[in-house]
Amino acid sequence: MAEPSPSRRLPESLRQRLAEHFGTRFSCGESIRLQHGRDESVHDPLPPDGVVLAESTAEVALVVRLCAEHGVPVIPYGVGSSVEGHVLAPGGGISLDLSGMNRVVAIHADDGDAVVEAGVTRKQLNDALKGSGLFFPIDPGADATLGGMAATRASGTNAVRYGTMKDNVLATTTVLADGRVMKTGGRARKSSAGYDLTRLLVGSEGTLGIMTELTVKLYPIPEAISAAVCTFPDIDAAVRTVIQTIQLGVPVARIELLDALSLAAINKFSKTTLAEAPTLFFEFHGSPAGVAEQAETVQAIAGELGGADFQWATRPEDRSRLWQARHDAYFACLQLKPGGRCFPTDVCVPISRLAECIAETQADIAKVNIPIALFGHVGDGNFHLVVLVDRDNPQDMAEAAWISERVVERAIALEGTCTGEHGVGLGKRKYLIAEHGAVAVDVMRMLKTALDPQNLLNPGKVLP
Amino acid sequence: MAEPSPSRRLPESLRQRLAEHFGTRFSCGESIRLQHGRDESVHDPLPPDGVVLAESTAEVALVVRLCAEHGVPVIPYGVGSSVEGHVLAPGGGISLDLSGMNRVVAIHADDGDAVVEAGVTRKQLNDALKGSGLFFPIDPGADATLGGMAATRASGTNAVRYGTMKDNVLATTTVLADGRVMKTGGRARKSSAGYDLTRLLVGSEGTLGIMTELTVKLYPIPEAISAAVCTFPDIDAAVRTVIQTIQLGVPVARIELLDALSLAAINKFSKTTLAEAPTLFFEFHGSPAGVAEQAETVQAIAGELGGADFQWATRPEDRSRLWQARHDAYFACLQLKPGGRCFPTDVCVPISRLAECIAETQADIAKVNIPIALFGHVGDGNFHLVVLVDRDNPQDMAEAAWISERVVERAIALEGTCTGEHGVGLGKRKYLIAEHGAVAVDVMRMLKTALDPQNLLNPGKVLP
Repeated sequence: MAEPSPSRRLPESLRQRLAEHFGTRFSCGESIRLQHGRDESVHDPLPPDGVVLAESTAEVALVVRLCAEHGVPVIPYGVGSSVEGHVLAPGGGISLDLSGMNRVVAIHADDGDAVVEAGVTRKQLNDALKGSGLFFPIDPGADATLGGMAATRASGTNAVRYGTMKDNVLATTTVLADGRVMKTGGRARKSSAGYDLTRLLVGSEGTLGIMTELTVKLYPIPEAISAAVCTFPDIDAAVRTVIQTIQLGVPVARIELLDALSLAAINKFSKTTLAEAPTLFFEFHGSPAGVAEQAETVQAIAGELGGADFQWATRPEDRSRLWQARHDAYFACLQLKPGGRCFPTDVCVPISRLAECIAETQADIAKVNIPIALFGHVGDGNFHLVVLVDRDNPQDMAEAAWISERVVERAIALEGTCTGEHGVGLGKRKYLIAEHGAVAVDVMRMLKTALDPQNLLNPGKVLP
Repeated sequence: MAEPSPSRRLPESLRQRLAEHFGTRFSCGESIRLQHGRDESVHDPLPPDGVVLAESTAEVALVVRLCAEHGVPVIPYGVGSSVEGHVLAPGGGISLDLSGMNRVVAIHADDGDAVVEAGVTRKQLNDALKGSGLFFPIDPGADATLGGMAATRASGTNAVRYGTMKDNVLATTTVLADGRVMKTGGRARKSSAGYDLTRLLVGSEGTLGIMTELTVKLYPIPEAISAAVCTFPDIDAAVRTVIQTIQLGVPVARIELLDALSLAAINKFSKTTLAEAPTLFFEFHGSPAGVAEQAETVQAIAGELGGADFQWATRPEDRSRLWQARHDAYFACLQLKPGGRCFPTDVCVPISRLAECIAETQADIAKVNIPIALFGHVGDGNFHLVVLVDRDNPQDMAEAAWISERVVERAIALEGTCTGEHGVGLGKRKYLIAEHGAVAVDVMRMLKTALDPQNLLNPGKVLP
């Protein structure tokens, strides 16, 4: 593991200007730099040269402008829950921490939207929505900031019904590389007025501009919610259940697949006695009758494909109990190798190729020694491997890299993507040309150059 | 009305090269140029200098490359159903007609997507889907090409449930300004891999690249469909019914509002006896029980707000009869002024502002002499005025321009957009800065310059 690099000295005039304006909210201290130079990934930490805690769009604009004048990189930072090294500072510079921009600016219940600062987290927004009858469904697992979720085009378990951040960000306030402040999109539910700058920014990982405010879509809390769990003789049967469910147009809110190893890990971690077999977790949203109907349809499909032990839950406490197992999966799997780190993978393929992609991946898993659990948001064709490694063991790291490489190459060969929801960051840059082709990546570079000619906004991310 | 300008001479070497390759599929004849120099709008025709009928991506790339070498504009053309002058040639050049690129390349029923050439129309795609159990829902009224619909970010009556073209184009093959061919997006349902070039192209009206192939989402044909019509004492009651329906999360497939004048026009045109009052048309998609439940919920809401004469239809022939009235609306309204032309408007506001926007617009309508009907996709907050003018009557044209300007300015003031689904073309460019601000429009221009430095792709459109 590389040691974090020592701070390059920031230009003295920049340091002075930042200190003047931000006082103690600007720091070059070792510990805060280290904290801002790592994320949840296995990438070696790369600390910035300084950290600014910004509290307004005007402050973000000021930092970006000052850094532009001095040729110093700016890396936006939320809560550091990214998993591909997005917040690391390979070229040094200022980590611009937006977690203090955490005001819910407006809730428009009639229109089903909310305006939030980029540092608001998804749980905070849902807390603020209590009593409104509305909720924000996108849930990547971590209590990430909405700015970070927009930047990485995050999604999670609810995406099969509610879409990803690309579908749920209506508008942004964004600071450009030259410090100008831009508004994109709007609160109307649709518009054909000009280029879709909002969706260009969503998923751009802070490399084209820094989103400081977002308008996001909200949804009515369903009148009824029910959950179910069903085990299958093999993963293929589970995946075919998912395909038929989607094809029938059942508007399922979540369909999650966990493999037998994940279930074993959960039983150990959560003291449950779930069958240690491939398992689908379902959640249905709708009216009471609609939810019952959806569930019956899915149960019938699952039954025909060998699904057994269908467990139902409509009461909130029973639902929570069932879904707790799914929520525990990541932490339970980490215990498969105490002290180990997770080397995350995140591929997504057309759902018709999912069973094949998983089966071939399982054959690879059988060839290595490190423990690897598999689960995912299979309604979208998206799954993750939890590859557990001792980062100081070269054999572990080599096996993890091999598995990761194989699954990505396989997903791309099956018309899928190297990342369904984590983003490119540092870790997936090498796959971008294989996935999109050299021309599209060249166009991405042209856009980057047009909007950030000095390459100071989160440099080294996304583009290979 | 301005006469179409005579053909500027195309550079002789370009003319030769095009003639060599395309033979009779390249023409500079007066009638074909005129036909390609106008659309459904009130804009004066502006014919191109020549027309090429392309049949493949390689041919599109060839034309773009040759035109780039000669500094000659290229204007993509589908079926000419645009309504803001999108296909006109203000700077001359080659109209590149893609209607011959009309192959349905692949239907992936398991994945719910289809790959089509840009010249495939929406009806053609739905014909090709017969028997698959799937359909493509986006319906802007005209039987437009999918390429044109993607280019203008089209939507229509089903958008409240199925979204617009921005939500339904997964991938494109696009010819860039230098003739290179780019693939964007992919068939996976979600991806966080790099900048969202697909959504940058959707709505760019042929100014950033020419889409030659699209992968679009398909949906299962609902098990049950029912329709309903309900009249209201005033538009405000109708709009409040829509707001409550959306807020309750009823997944209505269509909610269309027509004003009393539209109903009068329909009765005259279609020999129906519908009440000549503000009317909502509904369509519900789902399971039989789900559809019944949705309809009951909406009927209860409408009843509380003064809705009366609720008419139901579940049988296909009855549904068609009810919806025929809505489909006839545009042509029926044209008969309000025989020989007149329609000056279309197309604004969209947050739904909470819709009643206010419509009420103030009606007050304006009362001040002019030209007939103006109002209808729209009110589930999205989108409505149109059918402003009928004699184009040779300056008084008519002045009134139409005044109404159009007023409704756009009002929509923008209410946090809405100058165009919900028609696009910018020539007609809405002047509103772009008012809607998006100077910085965002400057960024759009930076993107245009980066991708089309010679300004040869549909020049004069979108950007003010």
